[in-house]
Amino acid sequence: MAYDEQNIFARILRGELPAIKVYEDDQVLAFMDIMPQADGHTLVIPKTPAVTLLDLPADAAAYTIQVVQKVAKAIEVGLDAQGIVLMQLSGAAAGQTVPHVHFHLIPTSVHQLGKHAAQMGDQEKIKAQAEKIKAAL
Amino acid sequence: MAYDEQNIFARILRGELPAIKVYEDDQVLAFMDIMPQADGHTLVIPKTPAVTLLDLPADAAAYTIQVVQKVAKAIEVGLDAQGIVLMQLSGAAAGQTVPHVHFHLIPTSVHQLGKHAAQMGDQEKIKAQAEKIKAAL
Repeated sequence: MAYDEQNIFARILRGELPAIKVYEDDQVLAFMDIMPQADGHTLVIPKTPAVTLLDLPADAAAYTIQVVQKVAKAIEVGLDAQGIVLMQLSGAAAGQTVPHVHFHLIPTSVHQLGKHAAQMGDQEKIKAQAEKIKAAL
Repeated sequence: MAYDEQNIFARILRGELPAIKVYEDDQVLAFMDIMPQADGHTLVIPKTPAVTLLDLPADAAAYTIQVVQKVAKAIEVGLDAQGIVLMQLSGAAAGQTVPHVHFHLIPTSVHQLGKHAAQMGDQEKIKAQAEKIKAAL
Protein backbone atom coordinates (compact mmCIF):
# COMPACT_ATOMS: atom_id res chain seq x y z
CA MET A 1 0.00 0.00 0.00
CA ALA A 2 1.39 3.42 -0.94
CA TYR A 3 2.09 5.84 1.89
CA ASP A 4 -0.33 8.78 2.06
CA GLU A 5 1.64 11.91 2.99
CA GLN A 6 -1.64 13.57 4.05
CA ASN A 7 -2.54 11.05 6.76
CA ILE A 8 -3.05 12.72 10.13
CA PHE A 9 0.07 11.30 11.75
CA ALA A 10 2.22 12.53 8.84
CA ARG A 11 0.62 15.93 9.37
CA ILE A 12 1.33 15.77 13.12
CA LEU A 13 4.96 14.84 12.36
CA ARG A 14 5.22 17.88 10.06
CA GLY A 15 3.71 20.13 12.75
CA GLU A 16 0.61 20.83 10.66
CA LEU A 17 -1.73 19.36 13.27
CA PRO A 18 -1.42 19.61 17.05
CA ALA A 19 -0.67 16.68 19.35
CA ILE A 20 -0.24 16.24 23.08
CA LYS A 21 3.33 14.97 22.97
CA VAL A 22 5.03 12.98 25.71
CA TYR A 23 8.32 12.10 23.99
CA GLU A 24 10.11 13.02 20.79
CA ASP A 25 13.53 12.40 19.30
CA ASP A 26 14.84 12.39 15.74
CA GLN A 27 13.34 8.96 14.96
CA VAL A 28 10.22 8.56 17.08
CA LEU A 29 7.27 10.55 18.45
CA ALA A 30 4.98 9.55 21.34
CA PHE A 31 1.73 11.40 21.95
CA MET A 32 -1.65 10.94 23.56
CA ASP A 33 -4.48 9.26 21.67
CA ILE A 34 -7.32 11.81 21.60
CA MET A 35 -9.87 8.99 21.30
CA PRO A 36 -8.62 6.90 24.22
CA GLN A 37 -9.68 3.32 24.80
CA ALA A 38 -8.73 3.86 28.46
CA ASP A 39 -7.20 6.69 30.50
CA GLY A 40 -3.56 7.20 29.57
CA HIS A 41 -3.82 5.75 26.04
CA THR A 42 -0.60 6.76 24.31
CA LEU A 43 0.67 6.26 20.75
CA VAL A 44 4.27 5.67 19.72
CA ILE A 45 5.14 6.16 16.06
CA PRO A 46 8.34 5.99 14.05
CA LYS A 47 9.06 9.06 11.94
CA THR A 48 9.88 6.77 9.02
CA PRO A 49 6.95 6.79 6.59
CA ALA A 50 5.42 3.30 6.64
CA VAL A 51 1.80 2.19 6.56
CA THR A 52 2.07 -0.97 8.66
CA LEU A 53 4.55 -2.79 10.85
CA LEU A 54 5.13 -5.12 7.91
CA ASP A 55 6.36 -2.20 5.78
CA LEU A 56 8.55 -0.60 8.44
CA PRO A 57 12.31 -1.04 7.92
CA ALA A 58 13.71 -3.46 10.53
CA ASP A 59 16.03 -0.88 12.10
CA ALA A 60 13.17 1.55 12.62
CA ALA A 61 11.08 -1.23 14.18
CA ALA A 62 13.95 -2.09 16.53
CA TYR A 63 14.37 1.49 17.66
CA THR A 64 10.63 2.15 17.98
CA ILE A 65 9.99 -0.86 20.22
CA GLN A 66 12.72 0.39 22.56
CA VAL A 67 10.93 3.74 22.84
CA VAL A 68 7.69 1.80 23.37
CA GLN A 69 9.40 0.15 26.34
CA LYS A 70 10.52 3.51 27.76
CA VAL A 71 7.10 5.10 27.38
CA ALA A 72 5.41 2.01 28.83
CA LYS A 73 7.61 2.26 31.91
CA ALA A 74 6.73 5.96 32.24
CA ILE A 75 3.01 5.12 31.98
CA GLU A 76 3.47 2.44 34.64
CA VAL A 77 5.20 4.86 37.01
CA GLY A 78 3.48 8.13 36.09
CA LEU A 79 -0.06 6.77 36.01
CA ASP A 80 0.46 3.96 38.52
CA ALA A 81 -0.67 1.47 35.89
CA GLN A 82 -0.96 -2.15 37.02
CA GLY A 83 -1.07 -3.55 33.48
CA ILE A 84 -0.49 -2.29 29.96
CA VAL A 85 -1.98 -3.49 26.69
CA LEU A 86 0.29 -2.97 23.68
CA MET A 87 -1.69 -3.10 20.45
CA GLN A 88 -0.60 -2.49 16.89
CA LEU A 89 -3.01 -2.91 13.99
CA SER A 90 -1.69 -3.62 10.51
CA GLY A 91 -4.20 -3.05 7.74
CA ALA A 92 -7.70 -1.59 7.57
CA ALA A 93 -8.96 -5.18 7.83
CA ALA A 94 -7.36 -5.33 11.29
CA GLY A 95 -9.07 -2.09 12.33
CA GLN A 96 -6.18 0.29 11.51
CA THR A 97 -7.66 3.76 11.00
CA VAL A 98 -4.60 5.95 10.34
CA PRO A 99 -2.29 4.64 7.59
CA HIS A 100 0.99 5.37 9.42
CA VAL A 101 2.32 2.56 11.61
CA HIS A 102 1.55 3.19 15.30
CA PHE A 103 1.84 1.31 18.56
CA HIS A 104 -0.94 1.77 21.11
CA LEU A 105 -0.01 1.65 24.79
CA ILE A 106 -3.21 1.33 26.81
CA PRO A 107 -3.01 1.03 30.60
CA THR A 108 -5.97 -1.26 31.17
CA SER A 109 -7.04 -4.88 30.83
CA VAL A 110 -7.58 -6.40 27.40
CA HIS A 111 -10.96 -7.53 28.77
CA GLN A 112 -12.00 -3.93 29.46
CA LEU A 113 -10.66 -2.17 26.37
CA GLY A 114 -12.94 0.51 25.02
CA LYS A 115 -13.84 0.40 21.35
CA HIS A 116 -11.02 1.45 19.03
CA ALA A 117 -11.11 5.04 17.68
CA ALA A 118 -14.72 5.42 18.72
CA GLN A 119 -15.09 8.56 20.78
CA MET A 120 -13.25 11.75 21.71
CA GLY A 121 -11.75 11.92 25.20
CA ASP A 122 -11.70 14.83 27.66
CA GLN A 123 -8.75 16.82 26.31
CA GLU A 124 -7.89 18.53 29.62
CA LYS A 125 -7.80 15.19 31.40
CA ILE A 126 -5.60 13.78 28.62
CA LYS A 127 -3.20 16.73 28.97
CA ALA A 128 -2.93 16.10 32.70
CA GLN A 129 -2.10 12.42 32.04
CA ALA A 130 0.54 13.45 29.51
CA GLU A 131 2.22 15.65 32.13
CA LYS A 132 2.41 12.69 34.52
CA ILE A 133 3.92 10.44 31.84
CA LYS A 134 6.46 13.09 30.82
CA ALA A 135 7.46 13.59 34.44
CA ALA A 136 8.19 9.85 34.70
CA LEU A 137 10.26 9.65 31.50
CA MET B 1 8.11 -9.44 39.43
CA ALA B 2 10.42 -12.44 39.72
CA TYR B 3 10.64 -14.72 36.70
CA ASP B 4 9.03 -18.14 37.25
CA GLU B 5 11.21 -20.80 35.61
CA GLN B 6 8.22 -23.17 35.65
CA ASN B 7 5.91 -21.02 33.50
CA ILE B 8 4.66 -22.89 30.43
CA PHE B 9 6.66 -20.87 27.91
CA ALA B 10 9.87 -21.48 29.86
CA ARG B 11 8.99 -25.17 29.77
CA ILE B 12 8.34 -25.01 26.03
CA LEU B 13 11.70 -23.26 25.55
CA ARG B 14 13.40 -26.07 27.49
CA GLY B 15 11.58 -28.69 25.40
CA GLU B 16 9.63 -30.01 28.38
CA LEU B 17 6.29 -29.19 26.77
CA PRO B 18 5.34 -29.51 23.11
CA ALA B 19 4.59 -26.58 20.81
CA ILE B 20 3.61 -26.20 17.18
CA LYS B 21 6.63 -24.18 16.13
CA VAL B 22 6.81 -21.97 13.04
CA TYR B 23 10.21 -20.31 13.59
CA GLU B 24 13.15 -20.70 15.93
CA ASP B 25 16.64 -19.27 16.20
CA ASP B 26 19.05 -18.83 19.09
CA GLN B 27 17.18 -15.80 20.48
CA VAL B 28 13.51 -16.17 19.56
CA LEU B 29 10.79 -18.82 19.20
CA ALA B 30 7.50 -18.46 17.30
CA PHE B 31 4.74 -21.00 17.76
CA MET B 32 0.99 -21.36 17.41
CA ASP B 33 -1.33 -20.29 20.23
CA ILE B 34 -3.31 -23.40 21.15
CA MET B 35 -6.18 -21.19 22.40
CA PRO B 36 -6.48 -19.00 19.30
CA GLN B 37 -8.46 -15.78 19.27
CA ALA B 38 -8.71 -16.22 15.49
CA ASP B 39 -7.38 -18.74 12.95
CA GLY B 40 -3.61 -18.37 12.56
CA HIS B 41 -2.99 -16.89 16.03
CA THR B 42 0.78 -17.09 16.51
CA LEU B 43 3.03 -16.18 19.44
CA VAL B 44 6.54 -14.77 19.23
CA ILE B 45 8.69 -14.92 22.35
CA PRO B 46 12.25 -13.96 23.16
CA LYS B 47 14.30 -16.71 24.77
CA THR B 48 15.56 -14.18 27.32
CA PRO B 49 13.70 -14.77 30.59
CA ALA B 50 11.51 -11.70 31.23
CA VAL B 51 8.00 -11.42 32.57
CA THR B 52 6.83 -8.36 30.64
CA LEU B 53 7.94 -6.12 27.79
CA LEU B 54 8.97 -3.60 30.45
CA ASP B 55 11.45 -6.09 31.94
CA LEU B 56 12.89 -7.28 28.62
CA PRO B 57 16.43 -6.00 27.84
CA ALA B 58 16.27 -3.43 25.02
CA ASP B 59 18.43 -5.48 22.65
CA ALA B 60 16.18 -8.52 23.05
CA ALA B 61 13.12 -6.33 22.39
CA ALA B 62 14.75 -4.94 19.25
CA TYR B 63 15.54 -8.38 17.90
CA THR B 64 12.18 -9.86 18.84
CA ILE B 65 10.15 -7.17 17.07
CA GLN B 66 12.14 -7.87 13.90
CA VAL B 67 11.14 -11.54 14.11
CA VAL B 68 7.57 -10.39 14.79
CA GLN B 69 7.75 -8.52 11.48
CA LYS B 70 9.03 -11.60 9.64
CA VAL B 71 6.40 -13.89 11.09
CA ALA B 72 3.66 -11.31 10.42
CA LYS B 73 4.70 -11.20 6.76
CA ALA B 74 4.59 -14.99 6.61
CA ILE B 75 1.10 -14.99 8.15
CA GLU B 76 0.02 -12.40 5.59
CA VAL B 77 1.33 -14.46 2.69
CA GLY B 78 0.79 -17.99 4.00
CA LEU B 79 -2.71 -17.45 5.34
CA ASP B 80 -3.70 -14.69 2.91
CA ALA B 81 -4.40 -12.40 5.88
CA GLN B 82 -5.83 -8.98 5.05
CA GLY B 83 -5.06 -7.51 8.46
CA ILE B 84 -3.05 -8.47 11.53
CA VAL B 85 -3.56 -7.51 15.16
CA LEU B 86 -0.35 -7.40 17.20
CA MET B 87 -1.09 -7.57 20.91
CA GLN B 88 1.25 -7.79 23.84
CA LEU B 89 -0.05 -7.80 27.41
CA SER B 90 2.17 -6.68 30.26
CA GLY B 91 0.94 -7.68 33.69
CA ALA B 92 -1.86 -9.86 34.99
CA ALA B 93 -3.92 -6.67 35.31
CA ALA B 94 -3.65 -6.29 31.52
CA GLY B 95 -4.85 -9.86 31.00
CA GLN B 96 -1.41 -11.51 30.70
CA THR B 97 -1.82 -15.19 31.53
CA VAL B 98 1.68 -16.65 31.04
CA PRO B 99 4.44 -14.76 32.89
CA HIS B 100 6.97 -14.82 30.03
CA VAL B 101 6.83 -11.86 27.63
CA HIS B 102 5.02 -12.79 24.41
CA PHE B 103 3.75 -11.03 21.30
CA HIS B 104 0.44 -12.18 19.83
CA LEU B 105 0.02 -12.01 16.07
CA ILE B 106 -3.66 -12.48 15.26
CA PRO B 107 -4.84 -12.30 11.65
CA THR B 108 -8.25 -10.73 12.21
CA SER B 109 -9.90 -7.42 13.03
CA VAL B 110 -9.58 -5.92 16.51
CA HIS B 111 -13.36 -5.63 16.41
CA GLN B 112 -13.75 -9.38 15.95
CA LEU B 113 -11.09 -10.69 18.34
CA GLY B 114 -12.12 -13.76 20.28
CA LYS B 115 -11.73 -13.71 24.04
CA HIS B 116 -8.13 -14.02 25.24
CA ALA B 117 -6.96 -17.48 26.37
CA ALA B 118 -10.54 -18.70 26.61
CA GLN B 119 -10.89 -21.92 24.69
CA MET B 120 -8.81 -24.66 23.07
CA GLY B 121 -8.59 -24.63 19.28
CA ASP B 122 -8.71 -27.54 16.83
CA GLN B 123 -5.12 -28.78 17.03
CA GLU B 124 -5.10 -30.38 13.56
CA LYS B 125 -6.35 -27.16 11.99
CA ILE B 126 -3.70 -25.20 13.91
CA LYS B 127 -0.98 -27.56 12.65
CA ALA B 128 -2.15 -27.02 9.06
CA GLN B 129 -1.97 -23.24 9.55
CA ALA B 130 1.53 -23.56 11.00
CA GLU B 131 2.65 -25.42 7.87
CA LYS B 132 1.37 -22.60 5.67
CA ILE B 133 3.14 -19.96 7.77
CA LYS B 134 6.40 -21.96 7.76
CA ALA B 135 6.20 -22.36 4.00
CA ALA B 136 5.96 -18.56 3.65
CA LEU B 137 8.89 -17.78 5.97
